[in-house]
Amino acid sequence: MSGDARERGQAVYKKLFGEERKPKHDDTALDDFTIDHLFADVWSRPKLPMRQRSLITMALLAALGRDRELAKHIEGALNLGITRDEVIEIMIHVAHYAGWPAGHNGQRVAQEVFARRI
Amino acid sequence: MSGDARERGQAVYKKLFGEERKPKHDDTALDDFTIDHLFADVWSRPKLPMRQRSLITMALLAALGRDRELAKHIEGALNLGITRDEVIEIMIHVAHYAGWPAGHNGQRVAQEVFARRI
Amino acid sequence: MSGDARERGQAVYKKLFGEERKPKHDDTALDDFTIDHLFADVWSRPKLPMRQRSLITMALLAALGRDRELAKHIEGALNLGITRDEVIEIMIHVAHYAGWPAGHNGQRVAQEVFARRI
Amino acid sequence: MSGDARERGQAVYKKLFGEERKPKHDDTALDDFTIDHLFADVWSRPKLPMRQRSLITMALLAALGRDRELAKHIEGALNLGITRDEVIEIMIHVAHYAGWPAGHNGQRVAQEVFARRI
Amino acid sequence: MSGDARERGQAVYKKLFGEERKPKHDDTALDDFTIDHLFADVWSRPKLPMRQRSLITMALLAALGRDRELAKHIEGALNLGITRDEVIEIMIHVAHYAGWPAGHNGQRVAQEVFARRI
Amino acid sequence: MSGDARERGQAVYKKLFGEERKPKHDDTALDDFTIDHLFADVWSRPKLPMRQRSLITMALLAALGRDRELAKHIEGALNLGITRDEVIEIMIHVAHYAGWPAGHNGQRVAQEVFARRI
Repeated sequence: MSGDARERGQAVYKKLFGEERKPKHDDTALDDFTIDHLFADVWSRPKLPMRQRSLITMALLAALGRDRELAKHIEGALNLGITRDEVIEIMIHVAHYAGWPAGHNGQRVAQEVFARRI
Repeated sequence: MSGDARERGQAVYKKLFGEERKPKHDDTALDDFTIDHLFADVWSRPKLPMRQRSLITMALLAALGRDRELAKHIEGALNLGITRDEVIEIMIHVAHYAGWPAGHNGQRVAQEVFARRI
Repeated sequence: MSGDARERGQAVYKKLFGEERKPKHDDTALDDFTIDHLFADVWSRPKLPMRQRSLITMALLAALGRDRELAKHIEGALNLGITRDEVIEIMIHVAHYAGWPAGHNGQRVAQEVFARRI
Repeated sequence: MSGDARERGQAVYKKLFGEERKPKHDDTALDDFTIDHLFADVWSRPKLPMRQRSLITMALLAALGRDRELAKHIEGALNLGITRDEVIEIMIHVAHYAGWPAGHNGQRVAQEVFARRI
Repeated sequence: MSGDARERGQAVYKKLFGEERKPKHDDTALDDFTIDHLFADVWSRPKLPMRQRSLITMALLAALGRDRELAKHIEGALNLGITRDEVIEIMIHVAHYAGWPAGHNGQRVAQEVFARRI
Repeated sequence: MSGDARERGQAVYKKLFGEERKPKHDDTALDDFTIDHLFADVWSRPKLPMRQRSLITMALLAALGRDRELAKHIEGALNLGITRDEVIEIMIHVAHYAGWPAGHNGQRVAQEVFARRI
C-alpha cells in the first residue's frame, strides 16, 4: 500500500473525526484497510461529498443496529457541520424505512451524543 | 384523516414519482398511510430536503435488499435531478457499510433502471 | 429419529399446508429436520396454538424478506381459517416495526396469493 | 394532528404500558408520531386485537435484535395478560425462523424482565 | 427425546465449550433443543467438521450482530485450536461481505475475548 | 491502483470463478474495487485459505438472502473442489443460526446450481 493512500485516508478521517486514526486492534490489517481503502478510496470520492456520505452512513448504521459506530458517526456528522435537527430527521426517516425500533433507537443514541457534547 | 393530509401527501408523491399514487392493494389501509402519513407527514418535513431523503432512502433499500422498492426510488431520484453518478456512488458506499453483495446488487438494480430510461 | 416424530410432524404439516410434506431436496437431511424437529417438536407445542404460530411466522417472513416462504405460509394461514383481513393487518403492523418496504412487499405477496385462490 | 388522535393513541399506549407516554426525546416529532400515528392509527385497528399485535411485536423485536424495545414490549405483553409461557414459546418459535441466537437472546431478555417483576 | 441424543449433544457441546451445558433458562425447552437437536443432530454431522462449523458460526454471528453469542463461540473456536489469526481473518472477511461495521465490531469482540484469556 | 493489484486480484478471481472478471457495470469503480481490493487484498490473504473463505462466504450470502451472489459463489466453491455435500451442510448449519427460511432457501439455490452443472 502506498504512503499516499495512507496520508489521503488519514486526511479524510481527520476531517470527519477530528484526529488521525490510531489502530484500534492488535492486528492492524482491518485498521489499515479502513484508512488505505475505506477512507482513501471511498470517502474521498468527489462525486458524493462527505456531507452526503455522512448522512447516508448514519442512516445505514441506525438501520443495521450498530450503536457504537452510529455514535461515532454522529460525532463525525456534527464535526462536518451537520445539525442536530438533521440527525434527528434522519432517524425519523429511518423509523419509516427500517422500522420504528431502528429509528427510535437511533434517536436515543443521537441524544446521548448530543448530551455529551453540550 | 383530513383531506389536507391526502392532498399534501399526493403532492409530495407526485413530485417524486411523477404522478399521484393510485392504490396498489385491494385493502387500501397501507396505501392510505403511505400518502397520509409517510408522504404527508414525513417526506414533507422541511428540515431534511427531499433530495437528501431520496439519497438516504436508496441507501437503506439497497442495504435491506428491497429491489423493487429500490428500483422505484431510483426512478424517483432521477426525477428529482439526482444524477446517475450519484446513484452509483451511493451503491459504492453501501457496499462498504452493508456489505459487498448489497452494494453490488444495488448497482445492478440501478443499471437496469438506467437502461429502461435510455 | 423415531417414526413417531415423523408421523406427528407430518400431521401438523398437513393441518397447515393441506398435504404431507414431500422431500424438496435431493439431500433430505433438512427436509427430515423440518418434519421431525420443526413441525413435530416446535409447531406442535400446545402453549402457543398453531393459529398464533402462523400469525407470527408470517410477520417474521415478511420482516426477513423471505417471499417464497411467506407465500407458502399465507396459504397455510388461510387453510387454518385466518382471514385475509388478518393477513393484511399483519403486513400493516410489520410496516411499522420492520419498515415500510417490508410491510408493503408483504402485502404485495399476500395479494398475489389471494388472487391465485380466487 | 388532531387532539383526537393524541387521546386515542395515549389510551392504547396506556392499556399496553400502564401509563401515558411521556416524550422520550428533546425533539418530540418521533414521539408524536408514536402516539398520533403508531398507537392511534395502527395498534388500535380492530381487525387484529392488541393481544395478537403484542405477540407479533415481540417476535419481530427478537428477530431484529432490538433488546431494549423487546424488554419494554414483554412488559406490555404481561400487562395485557399474555403469560410468561407464551412469551417463551414465541422465543422458541423465533429461534427456528430467525435463527438460534435470536431466540436464545430473546429468552434471555424475557427472563430478565420476569426476574424484575417477580 | 432419547437419552442418547442428550449424551451425544452434551459431548459435542463439551468439546466446543469445555464443559457440559447447564440450563440457562427457567423454562428449559430451548435449552433442551440446543443439546438434543442443535448439538446432537447438527453440530455432530460428520460431512462438515466442527472446526469448519465453528468458522462459519463466528462469521454468521458477527454478520448478524449477536455479540454475546459471538464472544462465546470465539471461546469455543480457540478451544478447538482455531488460532487468533484465523478469528481475525474471519472478521476481515465479514467486513467485506456483511459491511464494515459488522467486521469492525466482530474484531472488537474478538479482542475482548483474547484479552480475557491472556 | 497498481497494475500489480489488478493482476493479483484477477488471478484469485480466476481461481475461484474460472475466468477473469469482466466489468459488470458501466461505471467500473465498484468492479475495480472488487478486483483491486476485495480479491487482491482480502481473498488472497494467506492466513485463511480460499477454501475456508468460500465456505464462509456461502454461509453469509445464504444468511443475508443474496441469492444471485450465493449461486455464483456456489459455482466458485465447486470449482475449488468443495463438495456438494459440504455446500448442503452449510445450508443446514445456516438454517439453525440464521433461521430455517435462510437455510431452506440456500439449499434451493444450491440445488438449482447443481442441476445446471449436471
